[in-house]
Amino acid sequence: MAQGKLLYAQSGGVTAVINATAAAVIEAARAVKLPVLAGQNGIVGVLREELIDTRKESAADIRRLAQTPGGAFGSCRFKLKDIDTDRAHYERLIDVCRAHDVRYFLYNGGNDSADTALKVSQLAKEFDYPLTCIGVPKTVDNDLAVTDCCPGFGSVAKYTATSVLEASYDVAAMAESSTKVFVMEVMGRHAGWIAAAAGLAGNGKDEPPHLILFPEVPYEEKAVLAEIQRVVDRVGWCTVVVSEGLRHPDGRFVAEAGGKDAFGHVQLGGVGPTLAGTITSKLGLKTHWAVPDYLQRSARHIASQTDYDHARAVGEAAVALALAGKNAVMPAIKRTSDQPYRWMIEPAPLKKVANHEKKMPKGYIRRDGFGITDSCRRYLAPLIRGEAPLEYGRDGLPKFVKLRRLLVAKKLPDYPL
Amino acid sequence: MAQGKLLYAQSGGVTAVINATAAAVIEAARAVKLPVLAGQNGIVGVLREELIDTRKESAADIRRLAQTPGGAFGSCRFKLKDIDTDRAHYERLIDVCRAHDVRYFLYNGGNDSADTALKVSQLAKEFDYPLTCIGVPKTVDNDLAVTDCCPGFGSVAKYTATSVLEASYDVAAMAESSTKVFVMEVMGRHAGWIAAAAGLAGNGKDEPPHLILFPEVPYEEKAVLAEIQRVVDRVGWCTVVVSEGLRHPDGRFVAEAGGKDAFGHVQLGGVGPTLAGTITSKLGLKTHWAVPDYLQRSARHIASQTDYDHARAVGEAAVALALAGKNAVMPAIKRTSDQPYRWMIEPAPLKKVANHEKKMPKGYIRRDGFGITDSCRRYLAPLIRGEAPLEYGRDGLPKFVKLRRLLVAKKLPDYPL
Repeated sequence: MAQGKLLYAQSGGVTAVINATAAAVIEAARAVKLPVLAGQNGIVGVLREELIDTRKESAADIRRLAQTPGGAFGSCRFKLKDIDTDRAHYERLIDVCRAHDVRYFLYNGGNDSADTALKVSQLAKEFDYPLTCIGVPKTVDNDLAVTDCCPGFGSVAKYTATSVLEASYDVAAMAESSTKVFVMEVMGRHAGWIAAAAGLAGNGKDEPPHLILFPEVPYEEKAVLAEIQRVVDRVGWCTVVVSEGLRHPDGRFVAEAGGKDAFGHVQLGGVGPTLAGTITSKLGLKTHWAVPDYLQRSARHIASQTDYDHARAVGEAAVALALAGKNAVMPAIKRTSDQPYRWMIEPAPLKKVANHEKKMPKGYIRRDGFGITDSCRRYLAPLIRGEAPLEYGRDGLPKFVKLRRLLVAKKLPDYPL
Repeated sequence: MAQGKLLYAQSGGVTAVINATAAAVIEAARAVKLPVLAGQNGIVGVLREELIDTRKESAADIRRLAQTPGGAFGSCRFKLKDIDTDRAHYERLIDVCRAHDVRYFLYNGGNDSADTALKVSQLAKEFDYPLTCIGVPKTVDNDLAVTDCCPGFGSVAKYTATSVLEASYDVAAMAESSTKVFVMEVMGRHAGWIAAAAGLAGNGKDEPPHLILFPEVPYEEKAVLAEIQRVVDRVGWCTVVVSEGLRHPDGRFVAEAGGKDAFGHVQLGGVGPTLAGTITSKLGLKTHWAVPDYLQRSARHIASQTDYDHARAVGEAAVALALAGKNAVMPAIKRTSDQPYRWMIEPAPLKKVANHEKKMPKGYIRRDGFGITDSCRRYLAPLIRGEAPLEYGRDGLPKFVKLRRLLVAKKLPDYPL
């Protein structure tokens, strides 16, 4: 039987399946009678010693957790800086772990979280405190290094491709006398993974989306408008998918919503309506635009089975790696075959993951800059396959769970953040 | 066996289930060997004598049509004015019907279409041409008179309630250190039916959506901001659903996207980001906003079973009424019981439907103006129940159909519009 406790925390923007990972972690730990605590609102709750006692949650609720979007224990945007700058925070983390006999720390997040998990593991070693730190991958942005893809991405990809397909049927029906151009803005600040996934909705130049505007390809207004006009002339209408991270050739974002988040990232939003306005005024075409925003990353009702399987697998593997004492690693998804799609989990050193960002390969964007290539399609296709299990209530809504989230008693002095 | 042919046309904004109605019409007509022609792009195609021969579509494709969003034969925004003004158009319609031996005209749309179907029936009588005209209800706006609800509405209602629920799980998880307010803009120019449907996502003051801003309730910025702040103080975060038709007390729309459509309606869009901007600047709270736009009305992947059943039933009933020679009627949905939900189809005279707009009853909006009442909930609840059948492909996308849409040979001189 495992010694001590396992501490699990969610970090950064949540996804449709991060709770599937959480459920898998808890179920795997319960199988070996390892108690799981969860940071309330991620690392912030750990620093504050606000630790949720998952033993108080029923098995039925944990099963339902796997089909609930959002982050059931709360997540946060709170980045720990390097050890010298934020040394007090890191020491506090170790203190909290020690106070609650935590021997395993699973941090479920993106690049920043992998970095934090790595640093905690280093400091624990320095303090000679026996703590096994595991990064657990999660991000809709699909930008984590080493892993073939990131849990969370496949579902937003499926949502995006499906939505673009559906809306395009709508536009096609109306184009004769109404909307000619439909613009859909998708997430993706630096990498066009989600925008690329929209490309799965159709294949061939006349199928939607007719244009994808990637953050990787500088926005040349003239060329974009000319291509839209060509599509409208040829097809009768045009669907455009634009990434929130689209930039002018000089590097400025095409639309900045103003404000910065806790990581100092510029808050984006609004390139969709901006582009739609340009199309209407410059081409005189009736245009509609959509910005699904959080809807895309929380759309558990159209989560992909592949993504769900990945999310559960990294959770289970994280517990197994922790129990095996594999410190400072992340269970990564390794693809072994495209067709049929086959994959396995393999531990990757956090050092190789932390603060590395996986860009879209150049070869994934079509030469004209407006679409995806066949190799991109081969990579993306398996990730949206299958429909993840979801139970609906008699009220017609998905059956999501609200956990009890009871905190364990504090043992340490307050630690104001 | 029925004489002549049946002409079916789709009108106005399409829905997730209008093609389920079309499929039901075609299947019911096939059962009695009645050939169905369909106007290409609605009434515009009828005027141009561009008639799709649905006999060329396979039974399998018609089955799949029932699960395809958009309008498979094309729709249009083209309103025929009164008979004196547009007499030539009306006469052309009769000419086209006569040339192709059309004895039944089914017009699938909203208020304007019911009005057109009524006028065509009147002129046919004047010309002594034996034409039975049936209005077939369809609109996401749920604003048709007489019928208890409109096919298309239940599905956008289910999409909206589900999306608000999912996104709220996301916001709840992030609120500690990130987004505090989420604003979702929904369709509904004059009536707050779709906004009201969002209210099904939660029940009670602390459950999302915390505020619904209806077109029926004038926008008082101070009161809205104060309520948002109260919710954030109490709950920690706040979900706001706002109707595109929200107006200032002086009647101006809070956001006008500019431009007018073919019906002279102002094109709306942008109240979501406008309100989000106000919240950020006046309350200093981090805000995200979503505008699903066409995604909401084309979301066949989350269509409601009730809505799908209604959509098929009005199609089947329309054919039965046509064959029974019931002229100038519309199959309306009549609710006979809330719990258990029971309904039947009953013909309503087009005269009672045409150009009447069903408003939300006053008693459906909570006294504070920010939510729905129990009676509204009782009305809406059955409409989102059940998940309409949908087959997915091995590629992870819904299996939608593209019809062949072959036109019958023209018999009349051109009629330029």
